[in-house]
Amino acid sequence: MENYVEKLRRAKSASYSLSLVSTIEKNNALERIAENIEKNMEKILEENTRDMEKGQKKGLSKALLDRILLNEKRIKDIIKSIEDVIRLPDPVGEIISLQKRPNGILVGQMRVPIGVIALIYEARPNVTVDGATLAIKSGNSIVLRGSADALFSNVILGNIIRDALKETKIPVDAVQIIESPEHEIVEEILKMREYVDVVIPRGSANFIRYVIEKSKVPVIETGAGNNHIYVDEDADFDMAEEIIYNAKVQRPSVCNAIEKILIHKKIAESFLPRIYKKLKSAGVEIRGCPEARKILPEIIEATEEDWYTEYLDLIIAIKIVDSLDSAIEHINKYNTKHSEGIITNNYQRALTFLRKVDAAAVYVNASTRFTDGGEFGLGAEIGISTQKLHARGPMGLKELTTTKYIIFGEGQIRE
Amino acid sequence: MENYVEKLRRAKSASYSLSLVSTIEKNNALERIAENIEKNMEKILEENTRDMEKGQKKGLSKALLDRILLNEKRIKDIIKSIEDVIRLPDPVGEIISLQKRPNGILVGQMRVPIGVIALIYEARPNVTVDGATLAIKSGNSIVLRGSADALFSNVILGNIIRDALKETKIPVDAVQIIESPEHEIVEEILKMREYVDVVIPRGSANFIRYVIEKSKVPVIETGAGNNHIYVDEDADFDMAEEIIYNAKVQRPSVCNAIEKILIHKKIAESFLPRIYKKLKSAGVEIRGCPEARKILPEIIEATEEDWYTEYLDLIIAIKIVDSLDSAIEHINKYNTKHSEGIITNNYQRALTFLRKVDAAAVYVNASTRFTDGGEFGLGAEIGISTQKLHARGPMGLKELTTTKYIIFGEGQIRE
Repeated sequence: MENYVEKLRRAKSASYSLSLVSTIEKNNALERIAENIEKNMEKILEENTRDMEKGQKKGLSKALLDRILLNEKRIKDIIKSIEDVIRLPDPVGEIISLQKRPNGILVGQMRVPIGVIALIYEARPNVTVDGATLAIKSGNSIVLRGSADALFSNVILGNIIRDALKETKIPVDAVQIIESPEHEIVEEILKMREYVDVVIPRGSANFIRYVIEKSKVPVIETGAGNNHIYVDEDADFDMAEEIIYNAKVQRPSVCNAIEKILIHKKIAESFLPRIYKKLKSAGVEIRGCPEARKILPEIIEATEEDWYTEYLDLIIAIKIVDSLDSAIEHINKYNTKHSEGIITNNYQRALTFLRKVDAAAVYVNASTRFTDGGEFGLGAEIGISTQKLHARGPMGLKELTTTKYIIFGEGQIRE
Repeated sequence: MENYVEKLRRAKSASYSLSLVSTIEKNNALERIAENIEKNMEKILEENTRDMEKGQKKGLSKALLDRILLNEKRIKDIIKSIEDVIRLPDPVGEIISLQKRPNGILVGQMRVPIGVIALIYEARPNVTVDGATLAIKSGNSIVLRGSADALFSNVILGNIIRDALKETKIPVDAVQIIESPEHEIVEEILKMREYVDVVIPRGSANFIRYVIEKSKVPVIETGAGNNHIYVDEDADFDMAEEIIYNAKVQRPSVCNAIEKILIHKKIAESFLPRIYKKLKSAGVEIRGCPEARKILPEIIEATEEDWYTEYLDLIIAIKIVDSLDSAIEHINKYNTKHSEGIITNNYQRALTFLRKVDAAAVYVNASTRFTDGGEFGLGAEIGISTQKLHARGPMGLKELTTTKYIIFGEGQIRE
């Protein structure tokens, strides 16, 4: 088995010097990484082909194979995303609220890197590069543990990144790739409080639950999206139709797509047939509560399990509700705290929905598909947090930092 | 055994309505609590006497008994601290950085309560009131699990708080007191992700380690303070002497006192005898490294274990170091990430120390005793975080909140 403890130890040790490197030096390292990826395009494609062949033999689904696949276009997108990170402001060293206290001491908070981030992820190999570049820019070391199904791609990308760092001020050991497929290694990493400051898991809901259960290291939960759109009695029907269609159909496999529609009973008879027709035209399978089936008997009855399910597919369940409050109650009971929306022209109900719904992102009259670091203006993201501590919603560079209090005195003592 | 699950469930349920209560209503509830404590002063003292008698029978140490003790003065201080919380600004509902994106959506972050806080603490009964008032002001429910040694005091204070809430807009169930002394209940609470959003343990290092090991709920680690003052070669000796004396002697039993002194070798021969004399005069026991003992053979030799130890007593260990870098290396190896200080008149070394030392609070030329919510201008605090995620250093009202993204659209969909 590879010596993963040594890799973690080196990542920790590298993190101390990495935290002091200037923005110019970090950007220079990111440029070298981009160049090295461009130069090694052929090699990356070869290694990715090995993953693809292995996956085909193993009988992986088409969707999964598509997530593993790299091609020239996708590699160019990876390079472009490195260039985007170079342009982002460096959060490290920022001083927040330096204030003079009555006794004359100056008390402020300085933004500093967290230390060592362990990113444990499934499938897409571009996460290897995104993770490494975001970590470097925010002054952190990163330990990358990707899926066994994308191992060849992840290892070649990791080596290209580490090679590029050799010519820079960034310690090569700031980026560590865990190569062994053994599951036990993940479990061991989750215990290493000495070397790992935070674990970010990305993958299925089951996988994330497993990480939370096992980890002694603080975890930032990134999550599933069992998301709802509530169509209020004062909704603009055209807008509701457009938004629901976009949020369900444009890319059904992502976590910010919607899985449920709630409709106020007053408008159910007029709106339900419309949205049914629109979604049907895109091949969406529609399930519904008994009230919805009274209006549209052709739809399948939704079970209790449906209300909890993130389909990630062209399936949606619809429920008729009596009031804004029962819509909110339903959402807070069944949702996964990701993205929720209301369509309404009523001012007070829009505000009530914003305040009462418990989720990382709450929308009025817009598609939930905007829950994304780029769309929110954070630049690249390392994941979308669906927990409440430290970071909530898309996590960019700032969310990869912590603060420390700094105090400038002139000999003050406490009375 | 008491039905603690029901108490947690009620706390969670109360948290939803509590998050919507106005600042005026919350302040009104805090005033009722202060009044009710004042009115029941006699009863509180009686119950506290029962704890004291039980403790004396049990043979608790004088220091521990002093932590349990309430008297009229201490209860008046508790009331005063409620009045301080009333005067603090309410963080809930604050909108951070509402920005217009290119497609016209407005994206901002709204500060919201976390939900349910479980505070698990040892000894001092005033924490019962501090915890409840800070939770109410920040819109959170709180589950209080104090030490069995202060049970009578904690229960009477809890009941007085809950009684006071009956006349207010705050649900009584927002404050829950766990009364059973069984240790297993703590372990059960730590698994209840469904009802508890964050656990804050306060107590000994061992106790906090136990909570981290067992908890499935996110924990905010509050911590021990194995704190250092580094006396640089360019230190002002008078200032160094004053600050060290204050940081060690003024209140040795608290977590922001210092436990270690590091001295640059160039000034060791002149400074060491001075600080030895000063600390000796206050009855401090002094231990030292071999280099220090060459200068002052009368001091006891410090063992490897000494460098790790938080004495919380009139004991200190002194080490002579070769350079700023070796001082920083020693600190980052042995410290508990709480409070660290440098005494120097050198500009560059002051900045280097601030940047490189890994701790919640890093000081130049001031006593570490200032690491405190009140001293830093946060008002009251619920604890001092020595971890890096979510909150670091003293945690006030803001640290008891999270954010959610709010998005105002006009029909925007993602292209």
